[in-house]
Amino acid sequence: MNYPREDSIILLYDKKKEKKHVINLKDINNAYSTSNGMIKKEALLQTELGKPIKTHLGYEYVLLPATLNDFIMKKLTRLTQIVYPKDAAYIAFRLDIKPGDTVLESGIGSGAMSAVFAQILGKNGKLISYEKREDFVKNALKNLRLFNLDNIVQVKHKDIKDGFDENDVDAVFIDIKEPWLYLDKAIEPLKCGKMLGILVPTVNQVSFVLKAFENLPILGVDVSEILHRFWKTNPERLRPLDVMSAHTAFLIFARKVCL
Amino acid sequence: MNYPREDSIILLYDKKKEKKHVINLKDINNAYSTSNGMIKKEALLQTELGKPIKTHLGYEYVLLPATLNDFIMKKLTRLTQIVYPKDAAYIAFRLDIKPGDTVLESGIGSGAMSAVFAQILGKNGKLISYEKREDFVKNALKNLRLFNLDNIVQVKHKDIKDGFDENDVDAVFIDIKEPWLYLDKAIEPLKCGKMLGILVPTVNQVSFVLKAFENLPILGVDVSEILHRFWKTNPERLRPLDVMSAHTAFLIFARKVCL
Amino acid sequence: MNYPREDSIILLYDKKKEKKHVINLKDINNAYSTSNGMIKKEALLQTELGKPIKTHLGYEYVLLPATLNDFIMKKLTRLTQIVYPKDAAYIAFRLDIKPGDTVLESGIGSGAMSAVFAQILGKNGKLISYEKREDFVKNALKNLRLFNLDNIVQVKHKDIKDGFDENDVDAVFIDIKEPWLYLDKAIEPLKCGKMLGILVPTVNQVSFVLKAFENLPILGVDVSEILHRFWKTNPERLRPLDVMSAHTAFLIFARKVCL
Amino acid sequence: MNYPREDSIILLYDKKKEKKHVINLKDINNAYSTSNGMIKKEALLQTELGKPIKTHLGYEYVLLPATLNDFIMKKLTRLTQIVYPKDAAYIAFRLDIKPGDTVLESGIGSGAMSAVFAQILGKNGKLISYEKREDFVKNALKNLRLFNLDNIVQVKHKDIKDGFDENDVDAVFIDIKEPWLYLDKAIEPLKCGKMLGILVPTVNQVSFVLKAFENLPILGVDVSEILHRFWKTNPERLRPLDVMSAHTAFLIFARKVCL
Repeated sequence: MNYPREDSIILLYDKKKEKKHVINLKDINNAYSTSNGMIKKEALLQTELGKPIKTHLGYEYVLLPATLNDFIMKKLTRLTQIVYPKDAAYIAFRLDIKPGDTVLESGIGSGAMSAVFAQILGKNGKLISYEKREDFVKNALKNLRLFNLDNIVQVKHKDIKDGFDENDVDAVFIDIKEPWLYLDKAIEPLKCGKMLGILVPTVNQVSFVLKAFENLPILGVDVSEILHRFWKTNPERLRPLDVMSAHTAFLIFARKVCL
Repeated sequence: MNYPREDSIILLYDKKKEKKHVINLKDINNAYSTSNGMIKKEALLQTELGKPIKTHLGYEYVLLPATLNDFIMKKLTRLTQIVYPKDAAYIAFRLDIKPGDTVLESGIGSGAMSAVFAQILGKNGKLISYEKREDFVKNALKNLRLFNLDNIVQVKHKDIKDGFDENDVDAVFIDIKEPWLYLDKAIEPLKCGKMLGILVPTVNQVSFVLKAFENLPILGVDVSEILHRFWKTNPERLRPLDVMSAHTAFLIFARKVCL
Repeated sequence: MNYPREDSIILLYDKKKEKKHVINLKDINNAYSTSNGMIKKEALLQTELGKPIKTHLGYEYVLLPATLNDFIMKKLTRLTQIVYPKDAAYIAFRLDIKPGDTVLESGIGSGAMSAVFAQILGKNGKLISYEKREDFVKNALKNLRLFNLDNIVQVKHKDIKDGFDENDVDAVFIDIKEPWLYLDKAIEPLKCGKMLGILVPTVNQVSFVLKAFENLPILGVDVSEILHRFWKTNPERLRPLDVMSAHTAFLIFARKVCL
Repeated sequence: MNYPREDSIILLYDKKKEKKHVINLKDINNAYSTSNGMIKKEALLQTELGKPIKTHLGYEYVLLPATLNDFIMKKLTRLTQIVYPKDAAYIAFRLDIKPGDTVLESGIGSGAMSAVFAQILGKNGKLISYEKREDFVKNALKNLRLFNLDNIVQVKHKDIKDGFDENDVDAVFIDIKEPWLYLDKAIEPLKCGKMLGILVPTVNQVSFVLKAFENLPILGVDVSEILHRFWKTNPERLRPLDVMSAHTAFLIFARKVCL
């Protein structure tokens, strides 16, 4: 039997409208209210995951465990452009993030990338995130807490221009407006040979980063962009959706060397 | 100080030719031979990661820690089409793989996807992989051993048509030729509400899977494809590479429900 | 000096709102009304193309010659999915349409593809278009008349299942729901060696066409899709737009042989 | 009956190897030699288009009329990057090229774009092409002659920096290394309201052009890129090809105004 726990992040799935509600049960006191009626917390805790559950008005949802994808796409409060799953998953992979690693990032933005890092790092790992804007710090922490990942992430309300306090970290990820100004500071705490990742939305920024790289001890630079095309799911009339995201960001990766 | 260990997976990076050698030191007895001369194991163990190292003929490499990306792209022996990093990272994300989870897959192919799962699962997690072809089993295990991930993956030389032996697993991934024939068996061991992922190269296969889904207790189906475009790294003449991969696979995701 | 003629197709360009009005002057009696005031026909005829022109309320537009692209994207009344410029231009190219050629198509849809053909065919060429739905015939003819191309296109209110009446045509273009049922009829009027083009929105339709081709005297089949990505035009922050069309249609081309 | 003429451009299609020979019959004296034997000119002239034809060694080809696409992709001698069909067709469309128009371009490159313009312009139209490199002039003219389009194109061995000699042309197309230096000269000969097209391979060049536009009397600028993805033609295993062109060029369009 597989029931939600007191701090489970659940998904109420509305099959009729194909709409999703992402909820952390620790944030529900007595009941959760939908536009189709109320569901008591008790009922949520006593319904098996994967099963239907009804509001007091009889409207049916399916009770599901929420995934990190649900959280990022449906729940996370956005004060900034977020790092989208297609990019975030690849960034974590290229930075070679493993359970137990120590990772640095700046800035935290709305915390989407941080959440992806934190989920892989697990409770033995650590993400330290530098963010100069206090409103972003607060919002990101709130977001991470909603997905029970706040204990893995330490947020420092500091500007990267003052450098990182840490040393010997396994990976560094930079998502700020003018990364080329601080790349020396970005690679300093990185273990020799380890990966630096940078995300920028414009090609001008890519050029500035590549120029700044020319004077830094780095190796194996690559630049890429990822396009994600969803398809309609009618098996008899299979075709891509009409529209897609045309652009989120350019991804830049490099290794620190210690020559 | 950060030296390789006896079982470190290292990368010898040839800066002149931009060529990479991926090596697990546990597989080196006395020395590693390159086309530019030999490097003694002792020297490899006594050189800091991130530093240059020379062959007995004086040719210089940089000694780096290898990432899982290096391993998959440069080292893994391919007997099959592999799941490429752009897809593998997103699949692991969408299946919501976390350290400590238990995951099922079939088949193992050459082990690229298995390696990505295993790295995230970590030593407290478990991937059980069903593969009906013995040559694939052997090759995949050899590949996983090379990246020190074989202890996380249990490979069963069994056909998925006989079903999975396990129960209550956190995610199931299917990469076989005719997945639509075995989808009931694929979702059986899955915890209610958890994610099923399927990879197929052709649109005909996508149609067959979507049709088979109509009679199964699943929810929230999506189909997508990921395009990854690399750019040239000259900041003054920034532009995409001339060619790119046009296609690897279609990715299908769905949740098991228990209505 | 370059003034509009009595039947010029002009564009009133609203620089403030970046909005376009496409107008055929032959359809204006005394004046053209905008939401920002009225412009007399006389004024339109006496303003040089490329110059500003004001409404009676003082709102300024720029008077420009309209292009076929303006017409298709901004003016054409759509009763159907249209063939988009990125596809239409390539289709006309691959069908090797030249001034003076004779071309067959079925159906006419809303007339976008017909307009592209007709503009290249010119007054010495001929497009004969078969369309079984009377409402489409009327709408398409109205559209073509608006761009002064109706004299080049002959529309027949006939179903392709009864075959084409013509012979020895230079190219045939098929944009109907089930093209695979009528491919023998589609290639019959084509000169030996000349090009057949087919447009379909789904991959299922592509499969059916390719299967039907196996029994037909054709050669050199190719299938492709065209993606068109627009970029933002800020030179300091150059990047693609946020969204793009993910899909319009698959294009299939083949040559008729007479073995 | 449809036989080749003395100056027909034909295609010998090798069905076994799916290989194409593009030939202008005016360039054949007595016979055409293939690696599989010789075909007499007389035989070529007396075989209907669309029919098989054999070499003196009995190897069979299919005799077909060549399209402009065959010519550009298979025959044209390339001294430069060419403008690819996917781009060329769209450029001609956006520049609103019609039979009988007068068009200016610089430079001519290898003549692929010129050929697409010339085919649409027809014998009543005129393309004047400025090219500063004599080797390109010669090669492009040779290419155009091979496709019987040389009578429509007038090539001037002149640098665009000295301006165009013409006036009141219908469209201008610029494909040179530093277009931003000569945009004033590029729009000068253009009729008010008509289209300017620019092709550049790098984003840096796009930025420079957009900046230069800020001081010029132009309107309605757009920047885009076109991706063309071919699919495999097996109806039972339908999927895109493995690789595709990732990039050819960025296309910039604008209208000249005369405020």
